[in-house]
Amino acid sequence: MNLKIKVAIVGASGYAGEDLVRLLLTHPHADLTAVTSRQYAGKTVAEIFPKFSHFPRARALRFVEPNAELLAEQAQFVFLALPHGVAAEFAVPLVQKGVRVIDLSADFRIRNPSVYEEFYAQTHPAPELLSRSTYGLAEVYRDAIQSAQLIACPGCYPTSILLPMLPLIRAGLVDPSQIIANSLSGVTGAGRKLEVDYLFAECNESLRPYGVPKHRHLSEIEQELTLAAGRNVRMQFTPHLVPVNRGILTTLCLTPTTAFVDNPASCDVFARQVRQVYQSAYADSIFVRLLEGKALPDSKNVVGTNFVEIGWRVDVRTGRLVVMSAIDNIVKGTSGQAIQCFNIATGQPEAAGLI
Amino acid sequence: MNLKIKVAIVGASGYAGEDLVRLLLTHPHADLTAVTSRQYAGKTVAEIFPKFSHFPRARALRFVEPNAELLAEQAQFVFLALPHGVAAEFAVPLVQKGVRVIDLSADFRIRNPSVYEEFYAQTHPAPELLSRSTYGLAEVYRDAIQSAQLIACPGCYPTSILLPMLPLIRAGLVDPSQIIANSLSGVTGAGRKLEVDYLFAECNESLRPYGVPKHRHLSEIEQELTLAAGRNVRMQFTPHLVPVNRGILTTLCLTPTTAFVDNPASCDVFARQVRQVYQSAYADSIFVRLLEGKALPDSKNVVGTNFVEIGWRVDVRTGRLVVMSAIDNIVKGTSGQAIQCFNIATGQPEAAGLI
Amino acid sequence: MNLKIKVAIVGASGYAGEDLVRLLLTHPHADLTAVTSRQYAGKTVAEIFPKFSHFPRARALRFVEPNAELLAEQAQFVFLALPHGVAAEFAVPLVQKGVRVIDLSADFRIRNPSVYEEFYAQTHPAPELLSRSTYGLAEVYRDAIQSAQLIACPGCYPTSILLPMLPLIRAGLVDPSQIIANSLSGVTGAGRKLEVDYLFAECNESLRPYGVPKHRHLSEIEQELTLAAGRNVRMQFTPHLVPVNRGILTTLCLTPTTAFVDNPASCDVFARQVRQVYQSAYADSIFVRLLEGKALPDSKNVVGTNFVEIGWRVDVRTGRLVVMSAIDNIVKGTSGQAIQCFNIATGQPEAAGLI
Amino acid sequence: MNLKIKVAIVGASGYAGEDLVRLLLTHPHADLTAVTSRQYAGKTVAEIFPKFSHFPRARALRFVEPNAELLAEQAQFVFLALPHGVAAEFAVPLVQKGVRVIDLSADFRIRNPSVYEEFYAQTHPAPELLSRSTYGLAEVYRDAIQSAQLIACPGCYPTSILLPMLPLIRAGLVDPSQIIANSLSGVTGAGRKLEVDYLFAECNESLRPYGVPKHRHLSEIEQELTLAAGRNVRMQFTPHLVPVNRGILTTLCLTPTTAFVDNPASCDVFARQVRQVYQSAYADSIFVRLLEGKALPDSKNVVGTNFVEIGWRVDVRTGRLVVMSAIDNIVKGTSGQAIQCFNIATGQPEAAGLI
Repeated sequence: MNLKIKVAIVGASGYAGEDLVRLLLTHPHADLTAVTSRQYAGKTVAEIFPKFSHFPRARALRFVEPNAELLAEQAQFVFLALPHGVAAEFAVPLVQKGVRVIDLSADFRIRNPSVYEEFYAQTHPAPELLSRSTYGLAEVYRDAIQSAQLIACPGCYPTSILLPMLPLIRAGLVDPSQIIANSLSGVTGAGRKLEVDYLFAECNESLRPYGVPKHRHLSEIEQELTLAAGRNVRMQFTPHLVPVNRGILTTLCLTPTTAFVDNPASCDVFARQVRQVYQSAYADSIFVRLLEGKALPDSKNVVGTNFVEIGWRVDVRTGRLVVMSAIDNIVKGTSGQAIQCFNIATGQPEAAGLI
Repeated sequence: MNLKIKVAIVGASGYAGEDLVRLLLTHPHADLTAVTSRQYAGKTVAEIFPKFSHFPRARALRFVEPNAELLAEQAQFVFLALPHGVAAEFAVPLVQKGVRVIDLSADFRIRNPSVYEEFYAQTHPAPELLSRSTYGLAEVYRDAIQSAQLIACPGCYPTSILLPMLPLIRAGLVDPSQIIANSLSGVTGAGRKLEVDYLFAECNESLRPYGVPKHRHLSEIEQELTLAAGRNVRMQFTPHLVPVNRGILTTLCLTPTTAFVDNPASCDVFARQVRQVYQSAYADSIFVRLLEGKALPDSKNVVGTNFVEIGWRVDVRTGRLVVMSAIDNIVKGTSGQAIQCFNIATGQPEAAGLI
Repeated sequence: MNLKIKVAIVGASGYAGEDLVRLLLTHPHADLTAVTSRQYAGKTVAEIFPKFSHFPRARALRFVEPNAELLAEQAQFVFLALPHGVAAEFAVPLVQKGVRVIDLSADFRIRNPSVYEEFYAQTHPAPELLSRSTYGLAEVYRDAIQSAQLIACPGCYPTSILLPMLPLIRAGLVDPSQIIANSLSGVTGAGRKLEVDYLFAECNESLRPYGVPKHRHLSEIEQELTLAAGRNVRMQFTPHLVPVNRGILTTLCLTPTTAFVDNPASCDVFARQVRQVYQSAYADSIFVRLLEGKALPDSKNVVGTNFVEIGWRVDVRTGRLVVMSAIDNIVKGTSGQAIQCFNIATGQPEAAGLI
Repeated sequence: MNLKIKVAIVGASGYAGEDLVRLLLTHPHADLTAVTSRQYAGKTVAEIFPKFSHFPRARALRFVEPNAELLAEQAQFVFLALPHGVAAEFAVPLVQKGVRVIDLSADFRIRNPSVYEEFYAQTHPAPELLSRSTYGLAEVYRDAIQSAQLIACPGCYPTSILLPMLPLIRAGLVDPSQIIANSLSGVTGAGRKLEVDYLFAECNESLRPYGVPKHRHLSEIEQELTLAAGRNVRMQFTPHLVPVNRGILTTLCLTPTTAFVDNPASCDVFARQVRQVYQSAYADSIFVRLLEGKALPDSKNVVGTNFVEIGWRVDVRTGRLVVMSAIDNIVKGTSGQAIQCFNIATGQPEAAGLI
C-alpha cells in the first residue's frame, strides 16, 4: 500500500512555487492538499496554470489565503516559497505545531543572525529557530536532513558553488583563501519580479555582471566553506545575468595546495587526486554527474532536471585548477532540491519524482 | 577636396568581412575598390548581401578571386579577413609591393614564431614579417600604427582584456602574476563555421565554457601583458559561449599590490588610484567609456559600436579588484578596430566612419 | 507482472531520435534493446548523450550499425528516425519479418505515390507498403493504430494544423476551400542539419518565412483534409522560422459556412457550435487542451510535453473564424506522438510514459 | 552654410523616444535643443543613456519637465513620443503656436473620431485637429508631408502591412475584401512596459498570438485600405509576439482579381503585373527593398535600419498571392519613419541621417 504524505505549498505563484506544484503533482509519494497565494485565492491551480490542467488534482485544488493553523491540519510537510523575511512568519507557527517545513527562502540558511542582518539588511525575524534548522544541501547533509524538522534549502548560486567546492576543501586540495567564482545565471533567477531590468528587450542580447562584489548568497557560501575548511573563508564571487530562461554555469578558479607549474608529472598526480576526491565524495549521489574525457559542463544538459554537471581542468602552465559546474537554477537550485530533501526526510528513494 | 583612399577586402564572406564591407561602404575617406571571395566570385556585393543594395557601389562591385598582383594595383590599403595561416600568404606579396595591410587574423600578432607554433599548431608561414608588424590595439599603439605598413588587429578576447589590464599593470597597481579572466562571448565569435556546436538549438538556452585552460588568444594576451609588466606573465583565462549574437563581457579578478582588507580608508585610496589611472590612460580615447556611479558594463550598450565599457569595484572584504569590460566582438573586437587603425594610419580622425 | 515490450530505434542521432531515446528509457512498458547510428556505432548511449548517463540502460547499450535482420530479432517494435527515402529501406524488411514499425519520416504518410513524387522529388521507394500503412495522428486514427503494423507518424506542421482543422471540416462548420494557415516553428524543426541558415547567429533575432508557397507537408495535410471534407482540398500554408528551440504556433484563418458579419447573435450561435464540436471531438483526448476564457495558445505551455493547445476567436466584423494551436514540434510533433501511437498499438494507457 | 533645424522630443524614456534621441543626435540637419521626461527631469541625456555619452550634446542636454510654452520657443519641430491620449494634450498648444509636430502616437492617425473611440476606448481628445493632420506614411504621403504642420506617424504593424498592400489595391490586382494578415513582432513593440507578459522568461521560448481578432491598429490600416480601394475594407489581422528584440515580419495572404489556378501561363502574367506595380510604386523610394530571385524577407536584414523588405510568391495551386514584408518595428515602424517625415517636411534628402 502506498501511503502518500500530505504536503502543502505556501506561495505558489513565483517560478519556484510553480515548479514545486509541477513536481508535487506527479510525485509518487506526495499528496498535494493545499496551495496558497494571496493573488490567486479562489482560483483552481488549473485555472492559473493551464499546463497542469490534465491533473485532476490541479482542477480540484483551489489556491487559498495562507493560514498557518489550517496548513498544520492539512499537511505533514509544508514547502515555503516566499520572499525572505516573510517565510519566517510562517515557519515559526508551523514548526511549533510539529509540521515539518522545507523553506526555499534565505531565512534559515545563515546560522549567525548578525551575518543575516549584514547581508539581508534586516533583523532576523526568528533567530530562535536558527539552531533547529538544517541546511538542505542534500548531497552534503543527508543524515541531518533525514530527521530535520526545518530544512533551509540552499540558494541557487550556493548549490552550484558548494557542490564542486566542498570535497576539494575537505580533502585539503585547494587553498580556501584563494577561491574565485564567476557565475552565469538565467533570468528566472530574479523571480517573476516586475522590474525594467528583467524585461525581455533589456535581457535579450545583453550580458552583464551585477551584485558586485557582495552578493547576498556569499553569506551562506562562505558559512559552508568556513565549516568545511575549519577556518574563516572569504571568497570572490561575481554573478552575471545572461539571456537564458534557466541555468547556472559556475566557473571556479582555484589554487592547489600542491605546486606543479611546468611540471606535467606532478600536475597529473594532482589531477588524479581531484578525480578521486570527487568520485569518492559523490559515489552515492545520483544527481551529481562528474564529466570525464573532453566534456565540459553545459547548462542545456541539466535544464529541467535535478542534476549538476561538474567538470575540471588542471592547468600546468599556471598551476591552477579550474572547476566548472552547471545546474538548473530552478530545479536543482530550488524546487528539485527541495523535493530531494523531502525524499530524504521521508525515507523515500532520493530520486523519487525527480527522474 | 576629399581624396578618398582606395581600399580592398580579401575574404569578405565571414562575419568580420561582412562587417568591414558595411563600414567601408559608408566610410567618408575610403573608396572600396575590390572585395574577394572564392565562394562568391562573379556576384555583386548587393546580390550576396541584399542589405547593402541601396549603396550604388554595392550594386556595381563584384566579388573576385583573390589575386595579390591585382589587389596591389587596385588598393592602397588591403584588409585581410582570412583564417590564420592563409592570411600570411596574401600579406607577404602585398607588403612586398608596398601596399599597407591590415590583417584581422592571428598571423602577425605574435612576435615569437615559436609561441605561434605552440598555440596555433603550425609553423609560422612568414616569420620574416613579424618584426615589421604592429599590434593594432589602437588605444595603446597609436603612434606605431600611424606609420605601420602591416597592422595585426588584436583578437576579440585580447581587446576586451588588454584595454582594462594594461593601464593597471603599467601603473603597478595589480600583481601581474595573479590575473584571472573570465569572458562570455556571443556566437558570431566562432565565425560562420558549419559545426554542430554552433547550430541555433545547440547554443540557445546553453551556457558553456570551452577552450579550457589554454585558449589560443592567451598567446597574444600574455605577450602584451609581459611587455607591460616588464616580466613574464601567465594568466588564467576561461572563455564561455553564451546565446547572444554579438558581445564579449569580460570579468577580471585582480590582486592589488596594496593590501586593504577590512581597511575602508586604504581601500578608498586604492579605488581613487584606479580611477585616476584609467582616466589618464584613456583621456584621449573616444571609444573607451569609463563607467561611474552604479553602472556596470552591459554588452547591449556597446553592440553595433566600436566602444568598450569599463567598470570596476574594489572589494574591501577580499582585498581584490574586480574589473569588467564589454565590447562588440565583431566591431571593436575585429572590423571596427581595423577601421580605427585605418583612420590612425591615414591621419583621419580616429572615429571617422565609426560613429 | 509487467511484461515490457522490446523496442529499438533506428537513427538515434538527430533531435527526434534523441528525444525518442529519452522517452523510451523512462517508459514503463518499453524495454529499449537496440539503438542504431552509423556515426556513433560502438559508443554507449551514455557516452553520446551524457544527460542519460544515470540510466543503467544508457550506460550499457551501445549504438550499432543498422541491420534489419538483427533488429527483427531484438525488438517487437522498431522506431525509424531516419530521413525520408532511407526510412523505407528499413521498413520493408522489418514489416516482412512481422516487426511492427513506427516510422517518423514522410515515407508512408502519403497514400498516393505520385503525390509523394511531386512533393519529395523522388520515386516512392516502397509503394507496395502504402496501403498497409496507418497515419499515426493518434487522436484521429486511434482504432486503426491499435492493430496497425506500419504506423506513419504525421509531420510536425500537419499535427498542428490537422488537430484543430479536422473536427471543423467534419462538422461542416468551415469552407474547406478557404483555409489559410500560418505557422511559426522553432529551429529544431530543421533537424541537426549543418547549413548556414541554421547557425545560431543566422536564426537569433531573425524572423523569416520559407518554403513558400509549396512546403512538403502540404501533401499530407491536404490528403487528410480531403478525406475529411469528402472533396478535393487545397490550402494556403506559410511556415516561418523563429528563434526558439522548440514549438510550433499555427494560426488558421477560416471562412465559416454560416454568415454572421455584424450579427452578434448569429456569431454567438456559431461560436457555441465551434466549442461543442471541439469538446465532443476531443472529450477523450487527454493531450488536447481546449482553451477557454481569455487564454490563447502559447508554445511555452506545451514545450517538453505531448500536449496541443487549441484556442479560437469568432470575428463578428469579418465573419471569419481564427483558430490557433500550439505544440512542441519534437514531442507532439514527432517523438511523443510516436510513443502515443506505441501506447495505443500495445493496449497501454495512451499517456503511458508521456506525463 | 548648414543651418540646422531646432528640434525637441517630448517623452524620451521609452524605446521609441530613446531611438529618436539616437537619430537626432547624429542627424546632419537637426539640432536637438530639448528632451522632456517627467521621470528623468534634471538628469543629462548621457547620464540616463550612457551609450550616447560620447556626444557633447548628450552630456550637456538635461531632461526637463514637458512644457508646451517653452518647447514652442526652443524648437521649430517637436516629436511627441507619448502614449495616445497624452500626445494630443501637447499637440494642441504646439500646433496653435505654429510649431510643426510629428506625433508618434495614435492620436492623429484616425480621421473619424468615432473610429478612434471604438478602437481606443476613449473620446478623442482633440477632434478639431484631425482634419489638419497628415498620415506620415512617407512613401505614400510624401507630397502632403512636405507642408504638413501635424504629422501622425503610422503604427508599426500598419507600416508593415500598408507598404506592401497599397500598390496592389490601387492597381486593382487583389480583392480588398479578402485580405488576411499575420504579423510577428519583437517584444520592444510592447514598449518599456512593466507587465509580467513581457518579462524575459515569459517571452523567451514563447510563441503567442494576442489581440485577436480586433487589434487597435486595424483602425488605421482599414482606413488607409478603404481610401485606396475606394470602398469600405475590413480585414483579418492576427499579431503574434515572438522572442526577438526588434522586427516585424508580416505575411499577407491575398486573393487576386484574376483567376489562374492550375494555369501557369496566366499565373506568370499575374506575377509580372505584381512586379511591375511594385517597381513603379517604389521606384523612388530608397527605403523599400523589393526582393528578387529566391530571397524572402528576413527581419535580421532590416533591424537597426529604416528599410522595408518586400517579397512575394504567386501560388498556381491555390490561385493566391502571398506577400511578405519585414521592418524594424522601432526604426521604420516608429522613430526612423518620423525622421523620414522630418526630412521630407524640411526639404532635406529623404535618407538624411538614416543611412
